[in-house]
Amino acid sequence: MSARTEPDNLVERATAGDRVALARLLSMVERGGPPSRALAHLTYRHPPPYTLGLTGAPGSGKSTLTDRLITTARAGWPAVAAVPGATDDPHGPPPRPGALAEAVDQVAVLAVDPSSPFTGGAILGDRVRMQDHATDPTVFIRSMATRGHLGGLALAVPEAVRVLGAVGLPLVILETVGVGQMEVDVASAADTTVVVVTPGWGDSMQANKAGLLEVADLFVINKADRPGAREARRDLEQMLDLSAPGDWRPPVVETSASEGTGIDELFAAVAGHRAHLLDGGRLAARRAARLELELRRVLRARLTQEVERTRSGEGFAEAVRALAEGRLDPYEAADRLLGVGGAGPGAL
Amino acid sequence: MSARTEPDNLVERATAGDRVALARLLSMVERGGPPSRALAHLTYRHPPPYTLGLTGAPGSGKSTLTDRLITTARAGWPAVAAVPGATDDPHGPPPRPGALAEAVDQVAVLAVDPSSPFTGGAILGDRVRMQDHATDPTVFIRSMATRGHLGGLALAVPEAVRVLGAVGLPLVILETVGVGQMEVDVASAADTTVVVVTPGWGDSMQANKAGLLEVADLFVINKADRPGAREARRDLEQMLDLSAPGDWRPPVVETSASEGTGIDELFAAVAGHRAHLLDGGRLAARRAARLELELRRVLRARLTQEVERTRSGEGFAEAVRALAEGRLDPYEAADRLLGVGGAGPGAL
Repeated sequence: MSARTEPDNLVERATAGDRVALARLLSMVERGGPPSRALAHLTYRHPPPYTLGLTGAPGSGKSTLTDRLITTARAGWPAVAAVPGATDDPHGPPPRPGALAEAVDQVAVLAVDPSSPFTGGAILGDRVRMQDHATDPTVFIRSMATRGHLGGLALAVPEAVRVLGAVGLPLVILETVGVGQMEVDVASAADTTVVVVTPGWGDSMQANKAGLLEVADLFVINKADRPGAREARRDLEQMLDLSAPGDWRPPVVETSASEGTGIDELFAAVAGHRAHLLDGGRLAARRAARLELELRRVLRARLTQEVERTRSGEGFAEAVRALAEGRLDPYEAADRLLGVGGAGPGAL
Repeated sequence: MSARTEPDNLVERATAGDRVALARLLSMVERGGPPSRALAHLTYRHPPPYTLGLTGAPGSGKSTLTDRLITTARAGWPAVAAVPGATDDPHGPPPRPGALAEAVDQVAVLAVDPSSPFTGGAILGDRVRMQDHATDPTVFIRSMATRGHLGGLALAVPEAVRVLGAVGLPLVILETVGVGQMEVDVASAADTTVVVVTPGWGDSMQANKAGLLEVADLFVINKADRPGAREARRDLEQMLDLSAPGDWRPPVVETSASEGTGIDELFAAVAGHRAHLLDGGRLAARRAARLELELRRVLRARLTQEVERTRSGEGFAEAVRALAEGRLDPYEAADRLLGVGGAGPGAL
């Protein structure tokens, strides 16, 4: 490895504002392997940036919303006068309004692309629309794609967020297309997760409200100037009424990203949730839970490497032959490779 | 476990035509665990049913197409007069036309639902549209959903296909919504994979043609009565012209599932691909490759259990604390839990 591409050198340059160096660091994270590991060691002690997740179905206008949020966020976190989502909480004091105004000198956008052969192209097109900020030195925009398998991306996103924080970016907007478990995994890397719906969303999603509730700290009805916005709000509020009460009820904000309306209200609601989290140690608890999830993923990736090693052996080829010839079922074959012997049906 | 729910009892009843028993077997596969493993052992020796994969973006009309294909397939595999997709192949003789006509007395549909909070509802609605066949005793329709994690579904699908074959269903249509890696994983469980596109598809998918080519044995332009069908075909043919030549060039078939046009041509093209695979041992080779993939997945699932076990230990809780306090990075924490010690940056 040449000195020029070494993680510590790149971190130093990226911290000084060199965006090419930062882009290289994120490529390093995407690729994984030893340089990525060295980078993780360089950045893990730095306090993470505040991470705002934005997720929703294709076509819900997430990219335009992100575009608008960048502009609003650059004005800084507003002083929080009230926290509408916070409900009575026996475990902690109410949030302290007014104490959390803070400058946001730079904004990073990570657009996570699940790289489906069917939907992957969309986010690429969306990036092009974000041209407003393409030449703004205080904004850093980057797509991350799946390389190989989904697990890889779930591992790479929190690392990328840490890198962005370590080089001095205080706010990361994490944009994902809502396409399944992947998106839930990525949403779990955010401090505040905003779920974007559009009027009419309810028709196609009856069966999955539980999944939405699980990830949402805030709901946005985008394209709220279209017919059906009132019904969409009613559906969301009903769903929230029926869900188990906690110390936070996700506020519902209406926006029209293309018209630029509702964006200040949305960012104020995000600031409200942030104030709620900063209070009573909730943010620290949430981040610790994320680290636990990340550790499990790293462990799983390690163990997957064991599978890859097994695969190269003669034993694996023989097991595949036995499977193809109907001499073993897949579980017996796995037992044999793992040296479990007659583990019986209880093993998996 | 009561005798009534034991896998061998259920397999016997399902083989005699009891669809309730078959549905229970598939639930058993979905749930996993020891009964599923016992079931795998009962069914692995049976020759698998022919599996036709149908995949494409939401809204491409897959369910209506499946509906039409059920009717056409029930007339049996047609005698193959010519195999348009087969190209000159130095490694084997040309397919033998006319030799493969075969009855298809029953058809199974497995609709695989990636259970996204955003897209999961769609396939449920699609099922309702398949009412034509709801009371037909020769047709068995079943949705499979993600329980827990994606890997679980990737493991369950080939097992479910084996069960369907073992109880005597000769043809399985495997329908998936194209939403990422999941869909590619599921497509890899099919003998013939049909990728469904619609006029206008090219605009949103420039970046992902390689992913489509990887899985497609056949392309269908559905809704071909709409404007843009000619351009869609031209795009597909250009893409195929540019791809590496093999012994098969995916034919492009135009259909209008809602009008019922092009369905016979589509099924004839599927029969052509089947004839191609049956020739020169290609089908056996493809199925052996699938078993290899499945074995790797079983191994990975086994090793993931190790992670879960690790998680319950005191060591794991201590590692999470060390992470949260910035005393270890995630890779160091994983090393420690796996007992690797000072493995250094080369380990992951």
